[in-house]
Amino acid sequence: MDARKYASMSDPFPMWRGGALHGARIAYETWGTLNAARDNALLLFTGLSPPAHAASSPADPSHGWWQGMVGPGLAIDTERYFVICVNSLGSCFGSTGPASINPATGKPYRLTFPDLSVEDIARAGFETVRRLGIERLDTVMGPSLGGMVVLAYAAQFPGAAQRLVCISGTAAAAPFAIALRSIQREAITHDPDWKGGNYSAERPPLTGQRLARKLGTVTYRSAAEWAQRFGREPIREDMRKRGDAFASEFAIQGYLEALAQRFVNVFDANCYLYISRAMDRFDLAAHGDPVTLLRRAALSAALVIGVQTDLLFSLSEQQAIARNLEAAGIITRFASLPCLEGHDAFLIDLETFGREIGAFLRSG
Amino acid sequence: MDARKYASMSDPFPMWRGGALHGARIAYETWGTLNAARDNALLLFTGLSPPAHAASSPADPSHGWWQGMVGPGLAIDTERYFVICVNSLGSCFGSTGPASINPATGKPYRLTFPDLSVEDIARAGFETVRRLGIERLDTVMGPSLGGMVVLAYAAQFPGAAQRLVCISGTAAAAPFAIALRSIQREAITHDPDWKGGNYSAERPPLTGQRLARKLGTVTYRSAAEWAQRFGREPIREDMRKRGDAFASEFAIQGYLEALAQRFVNVFDANCYLYISRAMDRFDLAAHGDPVTLLRRAALSAALVIGVQTDLLFSLSEQQAIARNLEAAGIITRFASLPCLEGHDAFLIDLETFGREIGAFLRSG
Repeated sequence: MDARKYASMSDPFPMWRGGALHGARIAYETWGTLNAARDNALLLFTGLSPPAHAASSPADPSHGWWQGMVGPGLAIDTERYFVICVNSLGSCFGSTGPASINPATGKPYRLTFPDLSVEDIARAGFETVRRLGIERLDTVMGPSLGGMVVLAYAAQFPGAAQRLVCISGTAAAAPFAIALRSIQREAITHDPDWKGGNYSAERPPLTGQRLARKLGTVTYRSAAEWAQRFGREPIREDMRKRGDAFASEFAIQGYLEALAQRFVNVFDANCYLYISRAMDRFDLAAHGDPVTLLRRAALSAALVIGVQTDLLFSLSEQQAIARNLEAAGIITRFASLPCLEGHDAFLIDLETFGREIGAFLRSG
Repeated sequence: MDARKYASMSDPFPMWRGGALHGARIAYETWGTLNAARDNALLLFTGLSPPAHAASSPADPSHGWWQGMVGPGLAIDTERYFVICVNSLGSCFGSTGPASINPATGKPYRLTFPDLSVEDIARAGFETVRRLGIERLDTVMGPSLGGMVVLAYAAQFPGAAQRLVCISGTAAAAPFAIALRSIQREAITHDPDWKGGNYSAERPPLTGQRLARKLGTVTYRSAAEWAQRFGREPIREDMRKRGDAFASEFAIQGYLEALAQRFVNVFDANCYLYISRAMDRFDLAAHGDPVTLLRRAALSAALVIGVQTDLLFSLSEQQAIARNLEAAGIITRFASLPCLEGHDAFLIDLETFGREIGAFLRSG
């Protein structure tokens, strides 16, 4: 079952760093009902890897990536809001990206896909909203990469959203995050199976992708959480590989392996590389003075959430975003959360995040 | 120029997890003079990768890994102490390890080297000290891996040291550190050039080693330090690789690459794997109740230093060590340092570390 709908992008679709796409589309899902005034829409951008399926719906009852957060009576209340979640441009869950067929050649783009920027992901969301006949969003929201995209959205499309929710995002990738992401990309591009991006469907660069995902997972959590959750527990007997001198010995290693296996079977390696690089390159200041930009965005209110244990998008980065929003005269709530789960806390501690997000949305 | 001396190990040298070495030796360097009472010796263990060359000396005037810390009038004052620094058993800078020739076969051990444990590194240091005619150390000291080794030393050789200095160590590897180290090992063992440990001298698994070292470097530092030091500075023009779609773009990437290149040219991949795994496996509690062990060690005083920004050996791990030392009735100073440089701070912030170490040593 599939709840995805598709929005055609403008043709040509101009890319922020040059080049253009033809016949591009965005996969999205919606929950709730757009009201007659068309002013109750909430656009949700995702992190690096999720699809548009944020929550279950009659058309797709499977659990979504933010199940428990989006739904009737939940923090993002679909009885009140018409919620749209887009699969990012450049991803591989229905939206156009490096794994899509280039209509000019009939073959997958692969590395001929133009440079992807956070700005392009924002524009693709903006066009999706316009195709739905919505002039102005009630709220534009996103966690992680999505938290960068909402800032690019506000900078590029003044007046296109009334409120903004930036969760564990950043206005400019920090060198620590760049270092960690670039090691992940290097693990993929140095896998002999990557073949300069021209891997076969039967033999993608799984080793590099598994390493990249494991490292990603480590950076999305925190040492304190794992100490509590795994300690020095040995790996499950059935996951132990005999005859391999350096085989996994601890439960944490088995956990990373299981998550990595699940990921590499669904996510395209080139798409991962493109989105990862786009995150490194993002810098809101490239659009001008952040305070001026945010003032021009004409937002009425903003919520910025950061997590104290986040290694990848540090709390000081969320503070900087909140400070600029306030300096731009926007009523801003900055929530510094003590969750143990690090960057991924928004996916796990739904109670704490739901309380913040729900209170903010109800206050409007 | 070479200041190394060599100590022959007992033959057989029993390994803690089984097996034995024959004809093993430890490379070490010394500074200062052993007094007539033979009671002014300070044994220094290293982190994962340094050689025994902690500081310059007439025999080897090149800078050592703790240059500025060890020397006449410095925090580890070689006018007062006879300082011995050992290259860890299992390493590749003169001590016996997986890259050494197995006397039974005339060929390098490689993966036929027996399982290496932190306990074996401690024993090799202990035997080196005995060969020098020293019954009891004034102080046993070590940072990082060395901070684990000093605990194994105290547990295995009661009465062999009067004082202990544990710097950014741990009494048991945490799951977060295990996760990060196991990804590093996987990067090496999945490099096709590793060949199950049987790589040629001409073609070692450089890609895997480079990735491993880059990841290691990231975990040894902190996000705050890099934000301050590198920000979003672009990579130096001469380090930019044209024609590579995912080439490095930021200064931080160039920095990681330069450090990694330097490392892979000197450190043997199998030695790295063995020592890295030994760190994961270390758990002081395997020897019994830590407080009982430490009481039996008959230490008079201890210094435990941790760094608040350390990602890999968290402050709470240092606190736990200090708590157990105190519970064992040992006069313990616990220093929680606010240095920005993370786990590697002991190598960089010599002023702050020197103050703590110097004050502790002088107090004895």
